[in-house]
Amino acid sequence: MSFDSTATEIFDKQMKLTCSQSDLNAHLSSVSRAVPSRPAHPILGNVLLEADEAAQTVKLTAFDHSLGLQASFPAQVSETSAVALPARLLNDLVARLPEGELTLSCAPVEADKLEGGVLGTIVHTSGRYQLRGTSAKEFPELPAVAGEPIDLEAAMLAEGLAATLFAASPDETKQVLTGVHLTQPEGGLEFAATDGHRLVVVETTSEEDVPPSAGPTLAVTIPARALRELERMLSSCEPGERVMFRADDRQVVFEFGNRRLTSRKLDGAYPAYRQLIPQQFERRLTVDRRRLQSSLEVASVMADQKNNIVKFSLDSAGQELSLSVDAQDVGNARESLPAQITGESMDIAFNIRYLMDGLKVLQASEVQIQLNSSTQPAIVTPVGGQKLTYLVMPVQLRK
Amino acid sequence: MSFDSTATEIFDKQMKLTCSQSDLNAHLSSVSRAVPSRPAHPILGNVLLEADEAAQTVKLTAFDHSLGLQASFPAQVSETSAVALPARLLNDLVARLPEGELTLSCAPVEADKLEGGVLGTIVHTSGRYQLRGTSAKEFPELPAVAGEPIDLEAAMLAEGLAATLFAASPDETKQVLTGVHLTQPEGGLEFAATDGHRLVVVETTSEEDVPPSAGPTLAVTIPARALRELERMLSSCEPGERVMFRADDRQVVFEFGNRRLTSRKLDGAYPAYRQLIPQQFERRLTVDRRRLQSSLEVASVMADQKNNIVKFSLDSAGQELSLSVDAQDVGNARESLPAQITGESMDIAFNIRYLMDGLKVLQASEVQIQLNSSTQPAIVTPVGGQKLTYLVMPVQLRK
Repeated sequence: MSFDSTATEIFDKQMKLTCSQSDLNAHLSSVSRAVPSRPAHPILGNVLLEADEAAQTVKLTAFDHSLGLQASFPAQVSETSAVALPARLLNDLVARLPEGELTLSCAPVEADKLEGGVLGTIVHTSGRYQLRGTSAKEFPELPAVAGEPIDLEAAMLAEGLAATLFAASPDETKQVLTGVHLTQPEGGLEFAATDGHRLVVVETTSEEDVPPSAGPTLAVTIPARALRELERMLSSCEPGERVMFRADDRQVVFEFGNRRLTSRKLDGAYPAYRQLIPQQFERRLTVDRRRLQSSLEVASVMADQKNNIVKFSLDSAGQELSLSVDAQDVGNARESLPAQITGESMDIAFNIRYLMDGLKVLQASEVQIQLNSSTQPAIVTPVGGQKLTYLVMPVQLRK
Repeated sequence: MSFDSTATEIFDKQMKLTCSQSDLNAHLSSVSRAVPSRPAHPILGNVLLEADEAAQTVKLTAFDHSLGLQASFPAQVSETSAVALPARLLNDLVARLPEGELTLSCAPVEADKLEGGVLGTIVHTSGRYQLRGTSAKEFPELPAVAGEPIDLEAAMLAEGLAATLFAASPDETKQVLTGVHLTQPEGGLEFAATDGHRLVVVETTSEEDVPPSAGPTLAVTIPARALRELERMLSSCEPGERVMFRADDRQVVFEFGNRRLTSRKLDGAYPAYRQLIPQQFERRLTVDRRRLQSSLEVASVMADQKNNIVKFSLDSAGQELSLSVDAQDVGNARESLPAQITGESMDIAFNIRYLMDGLKVLQASEVQIQLNSSTQPAIVTPVGGQKLTYLVMPVQLRK
């Protein structure tokens, strides 16, 4: 962390600001999602509040050394100043206050001024609340990200994340597979996520006529956790809103409105996933998506940790798809649905949850599954609408 | 468990019934609330299904040797028969089936007919589901309760339970205090619950002109868990619906519609609570209930496990009530609200959660608190409406 000597002075200024409870509540709860639940350093259990007298704004920051969130909003500020206040206590308190204006002021705690003890006081209608805080100089600075800015459409970002985040690996040891890989083919954004067993690729295209980029293009892998927070933040964006993106060799930053998200990047080469997607298929199966989803949903009751396999039986002559789940000594499930099938009949087995995950992000009313043999990847795509490709490796068929 | 030799035959009959998915789903999920999560005997992890050909009904039963729930509903039954099926699996399955008719049939599993293995098959539109079940003869019978029937109004029962269940002790070792004590003064029902620190008494009166009871009257303590289930079941009652109650020396039963709840009683003399409620007071405080509730709600953020104390300061001259919560090294909260106060100013401290619990069940817009000294019980009552008395013991005032 670095700061210059003029900045040191703000840490000793006494904060006094007035703002609306609803602004403070909304931004506090949003930004606090970056507060670690078991902070490695106690200071990270705080939210940093920075009051800017010239701009008449308050900025909130939370950080866990991986993900950083910031938001600014208007306030009446009498003195440029900063303080770190305990995140959970502050959130719980502000969330329960009635609407209306509140005043936040801070002053050093005499007895331990040398240790940076600060007392924050919130006054609202007929209540006064005090919280023990910490000098802002303890709080780390968010990384500054030096790269060239890239302008993105919020709606495209949101669309891509909604359809891919599910497939990233939750296993921290899987490194680059715990993220989503973003690239920028002409006129759009491409998202890819895989955990090694299934892969999803989504291409989003701009509504507008976008000339080929003259500037830098994207190619970065970002942790899924950071992107889930970004997805949340994007849900409150207006149509047509833009997001400014920058990346350097270690960090990325997304900025829009008065909000900012920083995240470390994931190191390592992302798998060359395009090569994994077969181009030719022996069989094609088209079914009603909701019908397939609800059939799998019922059948999954019979699947459990040990046995989460669903067998697909394609009946080409009967133009029917049968699903079966067998849980020995417990029970079994069998369903049949009409399907358009080209190619020969076959049996193939999948992890039922991988299939259900993929169907959940599809919007089209029909889904197409393309297959080769029972040991080769299956490709699930919506019929019309999203440009989404979902590759699922089959599992071994049992007798 | 006892059954006669003709009944033995039904255990070997092959069940076949047809009913609606929504009826089965609704009653199954309701009755299954009595299924223990870790059954002492594996059979209790099942729901008993009894199909009655003459009545053309299905009856579902779940039991944990303390609480028993039963429900009946119409079905097309081809043979009087019974089977026990795994509760969670059956619930999960039926909940996910689409609406419409389904057929349930059961047959012994050839390989282990001697061990009572049964296979239950559910057929619905284009799906077939099988679950391993158990012979119904393994399932214990619900207790038969021999007492004289007492007719109660469902609405009065529901009203009383809603206002008292919160105060029963969750500590199983507290025996009779883990229940609600029901008595029947003239024309109404009285409910009392206490955990030793606070006591709530509610008197409900009948809408109708009820002549003094000629028959038996109530005086029984019933476990809170059973009464919470009863409260849930009562929420779907029609206005004016009646509940038939019976008690013997060990068990109670509530019956209404096609539903039945049995519970063991709690042994031991219930505290003579009427004597604990003071009749004379040195001070009276009247405040807006919602205002007090929201003030306590905010202040409670500063209270924690170690320090859940709120101090009330009554300012008689200023006609104001001040609340304060102090959490050393963490923070504090102070609130003031206008109040009508008669008697002298004083300070008194309470467990903040006990106060919040009691206020939650009040409906009146104003609440009255009557006090003597800071070490004597406080009595909280709504102004108008419910006949509710809430006694809270104060805690020691700190400096």
